[in-house]
Amino acid sequence: MRKLFSATPEEILRGETTDIYFQRTMEILKAKGMEETEVLAEIFPTQDGLLCGTEEVKHLLEGRKVKVWAQREGTPFKAKDTIVRIEGPYGEFGIFETAMLGILASSSGWATAARECKIAAGNKLVISFGARHVHPAVASVMDRAAVIGGADGASSILGARLLQIKPSGTMPHALILIFGDTVLAAEAFDEIVDQDVPRVILVDTFHDEAEESLRVAQALKERLYGVRLDTPRERGGVTPDLVREVRARLDQAGFSFVKIFVSGGLNPERIKALSEVGADAFGVGSYISSARPIEMTMDLKAVKGIPLAKRGRVPGPIENPLLERIL
Amino acid sequence: MRKLFSATPEEILRGETTDIYFQRTMEILKAKGMEETEVLAEIFPTQDGLLCGTEEVKHLLEGRKVKVWAQREGTPFKAKDTIVRIEGPYGEFGIFETAMLGILASSSGWATAARECKIAAGNKLVISFGARHVHPAVASVMDRAAVIGGADGASSILGARLLQIKPSGTMPHALILIFGDTVLAAEAFDEIVDQDVPRVILVDTFHDEAEESLRVAQALKERLYGVRLDTPRERGGVTPDLVREVRARLDQAGFSFVKIFVSGGLNPERIKALSEVGADAFGVGSYISSARPIEMTMDLKAVKGIPLAKRGRVPGPIENPLLERIL
Amino acid sequence: MRKLFSATPEEILRGETTDIYFQRTMEILKAKGMEETEVLAEIFPTQDGLLCGTEEVKHLLEGRKVKVWAQREGTPFKAKDTIVRIEGPYGEFGIFETAMLGILASSSGWATAARECKIAAGNKLVISFGARHVHPAVASVMDRAAVIGGADGASSILGARLLQIKPSGTMPHALILIFGDTVLAAEAFDEIVDQDVPRVILVDTFHDEAEESLRVAQALKERLYGVRLDTPRERGGVTPDLVREVRARLDQAGFSFVKIFVSGGLNPERIKALSEVGADAFGVGSYISSARPIEMTMDLKAVKGIPLAKRGRVPGPIENPLLERIL
Amino acid sequence: MRKLFSATPEEILRGETTDIYFQRTMEILKAKGMEETEVLAEIFPTQDGLLCGTEEVKHLLEGRKVKVWAQREGTPFKAKDTIVRIEGPYGEFGIFETAMLGILASSSGWATAARECKIAAGNKLVISFGARHVHPAVASVMDRAAVIGGADGASSILGARLLQIKPSGTMPHALILIFGDTVLAAEAFDEIVDQDVPRVILVDTFHDEAEESLRVAQALKERLYGVRLDTPRERGGVTPDLVREVRARLDQAGFSFVKIFVSGGLNPERIKALSEVGADAFGVGSYISSARPIEMTMDLKAVKGIPLAKRGRVPGPIENPLLERIL
Amino acid sequence: MRKLFSATPEEILRGETTDIYFQRTMEILKAKGMEETEVLAEIFPTQDGLLCGTEEVKHLLEGRKVKVWAQREGTPFKAKDTIVRIEGPYGEFGIFETAMLGILASSSGWATAARECKIAAGNKLVISFGARHVHPAVASVMDRAAVIGGADGASSILGARLLQIKPSGTMPHALILIFGDTVLAAEAFDEIVDQDVPRVILVDTFHDEAEESLRVAQALKERLYGVRLDTPRERGGVTPDLVREVRARLDQAGFSFVKIFVSGGLNPERIKALSEVGADAFGVGSYISSARPIEMTMDLKAVKGIPLAKRGRVPGPIENPLLERIL
Amino acid sequence: MRKLFSATPEEILRGETTDIYFQRTMEILKAKGMEETEVLAEIFPTQDGLLCGTEEVKHLLEGRKVKVWAQREGTPFKAKDTIVRIEGPYGEFGIFETAMLGILASSSGWATAARECKIAAGNKLVISFGARHVHPAVASVMDRAAVIGGADGASSILGARLLQIKPSGTMPHALILIFGDTVLAAEAFDEIVDQDVPRVILVDTFHDEAEESLRVAQALKERLYGVRLDTPRERGGVTPDLVREVRARLDQAGFSFVKIFVSGGLNPERIKALSEVGADAFGVGSYISSARPIEMTMDLKAVKGIPLAKRGRVPGPIENPLLERIL
Repeated sequence: MRKLFSATPEEILRGETTDIYFQRTMEILKAKGMEETEVLAEIFPTQDGLLCGTEEVKHLLEGRKVKVWAQREGTPFKAKDTIVRIEGPYGEFGIFETAMLGILASSSGWATAARECKIAAGNKLVISFGARHVHPAVASVMDRAAVIGGADGASSILGARLLQIKPSGTMPHALILIFGDTVLAAEAFDEIVDQDVPRVILVDTFHDEAEESLRVAQALKERLYGVRLDTPRERGGVTPDLVREVRARLDQAGFSFVKIFVSGGLNPERIKALSEVGADAFGVGSYISSARPIEMTMDLKAVKGIPLAKRGRVPGPIENPLLERIL
Repeated sequence: MRKLFSATPEEILRGETTDIYFQRTMEILKAKGMEETEVLAEIFPTQDGLLCGTEEVKHLLEGRKVKVWAQREGTPFKAKDTIVRIEGPYGEFGIFETAMLGILASSSGWATAARECKIAAGNKLVISFGARHVHPAVASVMDRAAVIGGADGASSILGARLLQIKPSGTMPHALILIFGDTVLAAEAFDEIVDQDVPRVILVDTFHDEAEESLRVAQALKERLYGVRLDTPRERGGVTPDLVREVRARLDQAGFSFVKIFVSGGLNPERIKALSEVGADAFGVGSYISSARPIEMTMDLKAVKGIPLAKRGRVPGPIENPLLERIL
Repeated sequence: MRKLFSATPEEILRGETTDIYFQRTMEILKAKGMEETEVLAEIFPTQDGLLCGTEEVKHLLEGRKVKVWAQREGTPFKAKDTIVRIEGPYGEFGIFETAMLGILASSSGWATAARECKIAAGNKLVISFGARHVHPAVASVMDRAAVIGGADGASSILGARLLQIKPSGTMPHALILIFGDTVLAAEAFDEIVDQDVPRVILVDTFHDEAEESLRVAQALKERLYGVRLDTPRERGGVTPDLVREVRARLDQAGFSFVKIFVSGGLNPERIKALSEVGADAFGVGSYISSARPIEMTMDLKAVKGIPLAKRGRVPGPIENPLLERIL
Repeated sequence: MRKLFSATPEEILRGETTDIYFQRTMEILKAKGMEETEVLAEIFPTQDGLLCGTEEVKHLLEGRKVKVWAQREGTPFKAKDTIVRIEGPYGEFGIFETAMLGILASSSGWATAARECKIAAGNKLVISFGARHVHPAVASVMDRAAVIGGADGASSILGARLLQIKPSGTMPHALILIFGDTVLAAEAFDEIVDQDVPRVILVDTFHDEAEESLRVAQALKERLYGVRLDTPRERGGVTPDLVREVRARLDQAGFSFVKIFVSGGLNPERIKALSEVGADAFGVGSYISSARPIEMTMDLKAVKGIPLAKRGRVPGPIENPLLERIL
Repeated sequence: MRKLFSATPEEILRGETTDIYFQRTMEILKAKGMEETEVLAEIFPTQDGLLCGTEEVKHLLEGRKVKVWAQREGTPFKAKDTIVRIEGPYGEFGIFETAMLGILASSSGWATAARECKIAAGNKLVISFGARHVHPAVASVMDRAAVIGGADGASSILGARLLQIKPSGTMPHALILIFGDTVLAAEAFDEIVDQDVPRVILVDTFHDEAEESLRVAQALKERLYGVRLDTPRERGGVTPDLVREVRARLDQAGFSFVKIFVSGGLNPERIKALSEVGADAFGVGSYISSARPIEMTMDLKAVKGIPLAKRGRVPGPIENPLLERIL
Repeated sequence: MRKLFSATPEEILRGETTDIYFQRTMEILKAKGMEETEVLAEIFPTQDGLLCGTEEVKHLLEGRKVKVWAQREGTPFKAKDTIVRIEGPYGEFGIFETAMLGILASSSGWATAARECKIAAGNKLVISFGARHVHPAVASVMDRAAVIGGADGASSILGARLLQIKPSGTMPHALILIFGDTVLAAEAFDEIVDQDVPRVILVDTFHDEAEESLRVAQALKERLYGVRLDTPRERGGVTPDLVREVRARLDQAGFSFVKIFVSGGLNPERIKALSEVGADAFGVGSYISSARPIEMTMDLKAVKGIPLAKRGRVPGPIENPLLERIL
């Protein structure tokens, strides 16, 4: 029995996630002996952004009798730029239109949002914390796109593995609630977790953030790498004033080496404001994970070598010097 | 070699898509002999919406030593309502927090947007056409959520199969461009595609929509079920005036039985306006597929039977009469 | 040597706080033997509000050879209503125009703002806490006006004495900072302060508000009348979520009898929102104390019995059934 | 019997205008033998502005066993700057917190507004005419603050005396209404009032302003210093067009030496506009007198030499190079 | 030599004011022997309004071999209503399209604006004073349209003659300036102008309006029908306060029978406000005369009896029960 | 019988389109022997703009015993600039005030709007197509003003004749509807119309604009000068995307010499946007023809050589170096 409703790679490669009308189209073309018609197709975005997803597109088309050109992942594009071009018999790739567009749209949306966060953070760290807002089947795709867009790390295990980096994370409120005290939980973490994982302790669970920060620093001393402020919105969220005060109180108590990690509803504006008052790292969730996909369109621009296009589009290929042959 | 970056059901069930800190939490609790600590956890949304995703949550937790209560899929919730409650040893389910929240957040976001479209359409048809805007691994999850939210059908093959309905679709512009003429393509479709698929022909590819509608109607006559207007935004998109005129011209030529399907950038407002002037069915893409996930939060509300909560939350369970025991 | 720059009652009654041109006017009229010219003067406001200040106006004119009519303090007026009418020789009262207008303008401004707060609070308590925003010479005038406008109490000692009520107050952050702990300060307060002063303890000084509320409640038990939330804006101020949570945690711990006092940047909108989630009393500062004075104008409307007026005004008295003879 | 509700200097110095809780705090500290606890307190504003009021604060604390530092009156400050610092036993000054904050808040509010008017007026005259909008007990405080903020004069007799300047003023509409004609009143003024008071005649009482200006100029000739336009809002107030026309008509008739004074609802914007078309002096009322007090906060930042602070504030003193020892 | 650039009726009837392309169209149709092609044409507006202009359209087409239907002048229409229908050989009327549309567009624009003013004025008088804002060649057309729209009179001599009413007017500022005094001018007017012209005297030229109103009333006594306030915008225009004061002063002096006429920048909102405080008649200039023409479109809807239409329009006639046969 | 309601030049010159009160003024002045009073009058606009209309004003006053100065047509003015000055007996020109103001107001309004369009179009063509929105009696006045304002041509026959240019135009939809096909109509036009009229064919009547453009170009080949896009608003109007596509398709098919004319709801913003993507000429209708008249005022500024003015205006002439003696 099927436990999850997401598609397996095999189902995707078999075209089962495609729109039904592409299947019918193939059926008609085959019946008419036209599935080998040579065409030239181009994919373009409808707004500006940062490209991600062509690696998966390449894998989708591998082994098909087509030539493919694409821009590199991580490069910026403008609305209406040609970002992928495919030449070959329509029957070789028509069925993958839905999948290719979906991959490019969602991956580029995530990468573009991550880039905005990284620009706001400058040389401070941005970590993708958004796995909890997307279906687990694509959490790894999202984390990978975020890092390609500029994030310095990601929290999901699979996402990090795909990127061959270590996953980033601190501890959940649950750990502290079960231990019943932040310092007890911090000490257990320090005792048990692998030494190369930095000790970053969550300080907003039971007591005031400034108070907990000092208690934790006094307990772990120089082994403490940082504290994480994740103040819930019911208590006003993490504000510049809070960061400034925690920084000052840590400094006054001799803990200037302790870094301040912040999370909770961050966006480029808030990252900028918090960075200016001393925050050192930013766990960004929904700004990246809930970024709107950047809509992509695939148009046939030539059939049997003759330029054409539907109404509203200019016939024939549109050049883009950034295209590279990938298949 | 891995061809796609999405996660397989097996990877998800093994906890590989989770945030790393849950894995570390389990490691600490086990080292301290605390993984069997009895807890009560609750999941709540941060805004109003329509619930979807509890079916997958149930499958995730099947076989674990926990009791689970949830609202039914397709029921509305308010911000802060308890929509899932889990009781049992933390070690049995802590690792799934990321996955459960992601499933509920994204599925409920899609279902909520679909509901808004259906309300706008009244008793006219709404079809989910958004597979092309999401990663193929979740296209089926999205189409399923759209139908639970109120859509009458969906275009992705796997999505429709999960719902045990027929997938809905007409034909792509590519088919017409390859045939070189809308009427030729329509006749081929009519000849070859299974008789129980309604003949709905796209009429904006080469010529004016009103003109093509009449040509197609004259060719297929009473076998024509409908025409689809998908006018690109470069030509002003589908407007109420266009629908009104096509309806009038079809009627004057004796084709009042031909239905008008519309698609392209639809949202509840445009659906309402187009419905009022005679559109019969609506293919909705990005309004549903790009709907923001509805953020979900999971809180421990009791540990070893004692009510507690982190700062900002009220300790102990919060009642919701709609909860039903599902495991 | 003069220690403060405010005017004494004697200086005010001698006309020394008046605008210089009224003094010159008297000089001219006397030189011309015209100071006994009979006139009719009327005072009117330029916007709607609640009247306060006629009691002081009466005292200013006592002993002068004039007849005076006025609306009662605490009654509402519309822009341009006649709220005071004076008949008699101009020399008897002309010099007091500046003082009378100033009294009426500022007192009515304060009373009007207090009325808005009281309407928002319904049957919950509103206390005037604004003495700290006005010059001490008028703190008592302001507190008196606030109570006439609808406030249930006031914090300044002299203001309360004028109204023959007990002044209201809890404790300053300074007391807690000097004791070094909220519970220690609370216990000292409870031990020493007169038994008929309700024990209302400030709970945002050192620790989290919810945490301190419970510590204080456990220490003072049934002798605790209430807790006061005055969270600084650097920590997000007092929000509905905070009030809701403190209420819930107090109730769960068996302290439903403990009331919640709130203060800090309150205005009618926030009073309404906080009242709905369980706040019991409101300490209002700058919304009342910084209310704009309601500008007042005094016009001569008749000279020697003949109706006249300057350009822009209608000659002769304007009737108002609410006027009563007060002198 | 008390004739006015304002406080006398003696009442203020005895602490009777303070908030009741400071009195209770002293009672507790004395009972516990803690009134001599050494503390360091700082006062800071919550928004930018121009400082006024430290002179009165100094008088309040004179003779107390405290050291006091403050910024000078008339200097600008930023939000959160330390503008006053007090060191000494809390018992020596705690009771004055309400009074000190009130003095600084209201005086700085008035001075800040006056500065904005003066900047708008450039080298033209700004006179404080707002005594009629505030309680007479503080009219002198307000006029003094206005001049410290930049006003060139003030209308209240006591305010001017405190500043050792002559009070500024022209004549009220009442004088003209009693004389029944502007020219008769002007001639009486010219005959009787001291020769060193400039003859500035109000010209909007009975006839059109331009017409009256010429009549008055023809009557007083070179003895006329200026005309004052105070057109009521019922007649459109004083507009740039009116000033331009009166200037032109006076010039054409050979009275270019006659200055134009304007008053009535002036603010920096209107001052600038009227100045550009030829107005020479500005009588500013409610823009200065109804300026919102600039909220001030006093925090204990050290107790017995140990830096501390309530939540939301950084412990220990915050340096400000503009502070000077005043006591 | 031509003195004015406007077209004479003869030029218009010869088609010389038409767009050149209609002339060329006739040339082509004649060359091809097609000028007798039977067509059905309809004119519709692009927004809601009040119809005016069909009387002139009728005269334009008189004597042509066409049947014409139209709505009556003075009746309201909705956007896209058919307001004129013409059947006959295209050669009989095509050349008049430009002229017919221009007549209907401008006349309906004026009539619609006049209707809004009349609705605002209720049963008070509205007079069209806008001849000075349009070219004299159409001043009469505009005045006629205003009266059809609801105005009670018009100031232009020819406009009034067309409507067979007396033209309305008072006196210009020039008359008063030449006489040098309002009362002298009023007396001359009263002496010389025909007795059935109501005496309405302009009172804002030299002195204050209230003052002049009384002087004029005292001079003309019961022969005075009304005063006209036309205060220039440099003096604030005519405001409700001014009307209220003039009304009060006239009443107090026993002249309640004198009516108040107002003019200067009136629009429906200001008419309503001034009417409420006692104005009796309204001279409306640019609100009517500068009203935007309501764009009109003429479409061929059938050729030789066969319904057709250009893209964007529904073929065949569109019924409107208000159409009546006029030719 | 009068067929049209517009005034003939003779009626205008006889003063019959004037406001009635000027006629009465003349009657009074004559009765009093004052019609020869020497006056100086000035006309000024109430907003910035471009001057047009002084040529007709000159013709109106020709033969009268007056001296007249004016700015040249086509020169810019600021609000309140003197644009016309008249010296002489009031009886010589008073009656023409209404006509002169109306001519200047409407002509300057049209010229100003045309200037804005031309600035937006740069060196591309702007043609006045607005005759259909104004009464035919002034269509020629409007077209003349548009060209003086900067338009390159005009569509009305009489307007063009006044300017001694050829009228500009293409063909109406009616011609195509009667021929039943765009190519047939184009060929007829090409065959019959004078060779020096450029062949510009309307391409939005029956089929898609891009499709028709190519059909027409293939039919007329190098004799085709341009295509005109006039897409109705029901089909989205003419958009930058449409122009870009038609340009591209024409170029790809070898017709780069064919120009693109656009029309329909153009304004300066849209002209700029369409010009940037390749439109070559702009037919502007209502933006010019429905431009609000620029209100003009005529003031007497001296009577018998003595400077004076009504209230609100500065007496005496106001210099303007651009004035030139024209009569």
